[in-house]
Amino acid sequence: MTAFSTTDTRLMQTALDLAWQGRFSTSPNPRVGCVIAHGGQIVSEGFHLRAGEPHAEVHALRQAGTHAQGATAYVTLEPCSHTGRTGPCAQALINAGIRRVVAAMQDPNPLVGGQGFAMLRAAGIEVQSGLLETEARALNRGFLSRIERDRPFVRLKVAASLDGKTALSDGRSQWITGAEARHDVQILRAESCAVLTGIGTILADNPRLNVRAFAALRQPTRIVLDSHARTPPGSHIIQDSGSPTVLVHASTTRPKHTALPPHVSHLSAPTDADGRIHLPALLPLLAQQGYGEILVEAGGTLNSAFLEQDWVDEIVLYQAPKILGHTGQSAFRLPENPQALNEAGWHSHSVSPLGNDIKWVLTRLNRP
Amino acid sequence: MTAFSTTDTRLMQTALDLAWQGRFSTSPNPRVGCVIAHGGQIVSEGFHLRAGEPHAEVHALRQAGTHAQGATAYVTLEPCSHTGRTGPCAQALINAGIRRVVAAMQDPNPLVGGQGFAMLRAAGIEVQSGLLETEARALNRGFLSRIERDRPFVRLKVAASLDGKTALSDGRSQWITGAEARHDVQILRAESCAVLTGIGTILADNPRLNVRAFAALRQPTRIVLDSHARTPPGSHIIQDSGSPTVLVHASTTRPKHTALPPHVSHLSAPTDADGRIHLPALLPLLAQQGYGEILVEAGGTLNSAFLEQDWVDEIVLYQAPKILGHTGQSAFRLPENPQALNEAGWHSHSVSPLGNDIKWVLTRLNRP
Repeated sequence: MTAFSTTDTRLMQTALDLAWQGRFSTSPNPRVGCVIAHGGQIVSEGFHLRAGEPHAEVHALRQAGTHAQGATAYVTLEPCSHTGRTGPCAQALINAGIRRVVAAMQDPNPLVGGQGFAMLRAAGIEVQSGLLETEARALNRGFLSRIERDRPFVRLKVAASLDGKTALSDGRSQWITGAEARHDVQILRAESCAVLTGIGTILADNPRLNVRAFAALRQPTRIVLDSHARTPPGSHIIQDSGSPTVLVHASTTRPKHTALPPHVSHLSAPTDADGRIHLPALLPLLAQQGYGEILVEAGGTLNSAFLEQDWVDEIVLYQAPKILGHTGQSAFRLPENPQALNEAGWHSHSVSPLGNDIKWVLTRLNRP
Repeated sequence: MTAFSTTDTRLMQTALDLAWQGRFSTSPNPRVGCVIAHGGQIVSEGFHLRAGEPHAEVHALRQAGTHAQGATAYVTLEPCSHTGRTGPCAQALINAGIRRVVAAMQDPNPLVGGQGFAMLRAAGIEVQSGLLETEARALNRGFLSRIERDRPFVRLKVAASLDGKTALSDGRSQWITGAEARHDVQILRAESCAVLTGIGTILADNPRLNVRAFAALRQPTRIVLDSHARTPPGSHIIQDSGSPTVLVHASTTRPKHTALPPHVSHLSAPTDADGRIHLPALLPLLAQQGYGEILVEAGGTLNSAFLEQDWVDEIVLYQAPKILGHTGQSAFRLPENPQALNEAGWHSHSVSPLGNDIKWVLTRLNRP
């Protein structure tokens, strides 16, 4: 195991904090931060802001100028070795005279996969990897999931009453949770590559599913599981061109909308025996299209399908201190699972008050 | 409005903290603390520990001795004026030469009700009341409820899964929440005058409903709503003589147990049209017998009856990160309440992690 100094750890933490600045905008790219330092003296900082714009290392090297000579670069992910939209960062570090590179983790992307480190070492640069790797992996859990698991990291958002209802029996649900919880959902959306819902939610609530609470550099894509192509042309997700929309149809369904606006596209996917989009087939398709982190904001049926098939990696439950009554629509409608009594399937990650509601974050146990 | 100094406030807070020491043991008496001081210099402290033992003022005066001469006494409740088991405290304060008495609140008990203050004032002592009264009322919410509202303060404990179930469809439920949550319930029980449940829970789970996690000076009474006298003679609450047990029968039911152990007693109460114990009649009976704070630990049916009739003042919800499935037994089974969407019926008082579970405390809004 490589030994890192406390200075190394402190500077890598700074690089992670920098990377976090890009959490709303780097998709489909990973979030990456870079610090260049001589000993404990930081000479420059950089982070990746948006796909198509310079990588973290490029920003940091530009700021460092000649101070990069003989310095150490702290990067939260292995520098790239391929000539993408911005040229290989490994070569840029070499050209700038960097003497040592400390990385949090190797890039699992097959286009890099250790070749960035190899390029640096071939140029005589000292390379160490694995510092704060757990934190670096958490930062890019969506990116890593689509590369390593061939499926997105799935976060399920649920807003329910004290008695576990998402709506009254007639479907009314607008204000179960308060303004603070609804604002927090805007942050979840902004952090996600895409927001996924079902046609039932589109027909019932006609949601916008975009980020409105603050100016977002990038809007998440809206993905609708609409096997029979029933999305109304007048719905917000078709009318509002501010975010991309993907309508997922059954492979056997001919799309009805022949003249769709440019921000709307179709995706064909196989269906289950009951005519619903087959999630085990859909999720790899989404990963291959670059969707790393997906926020599911749907009704009880789709939520429960994701949970029952064990595709959910994180649940964010907003719960309001209201009792709607047992005839309301349940947030979770899963088959009985006696095993759940004895085994911990979920980790209670955090819970906190949010206005007069609570926010409870749960992560699935035993995930790589 | 009386003006109090910061020293007054600090010393009253100390008196409240002292009173809190008696939270497991003073029932049916109120929790009371007393500080005796010259200026900011505390000369003695006392609190009431157990019914039948000296009041807070007596302990503090004994410790103060001659230092009580000319001192100020801070008491969390008006000193008593009646000769109960320990003699009137107001007279003791007079005899000791106390010059000023600061109280958090007047005693609503009709046996006192301002007469303690009157006795002190008649002896030339300066008396002020109302300092930290809100805090003092919270400390004795059970005592105040039975005196002022003629019913106990009702705290409802619920242990449920993420999907709001208390048990599987076959009733299995033993380990929904973890050891930390179960230990916390022991504290709730110790704080309560009585633990109330239904015959269904007795027959299904045969619980002990006592405090076992630590040495308790006093065990809460176990109250069972058993309208048709079906409690098995072999059940823990009959066999275990360590806590009092009260079996509540329908007024029309002749008790079956002719030879009950001394710790078990009967209480007759009217029933509803459906043969269940009539809560609006029962609760005043319990208040009149000295039960100030009641912990309801029951199944979904009785829990929901308490909630539906709006007798619950506080809900303590322990929620485990488990999904039991929709066929399980629901924690809440109330009729639909569309109003709940628009009005806040409950205040989210606090939420915190507890092991791998969460503890959410909710208090009913708009209560006196």
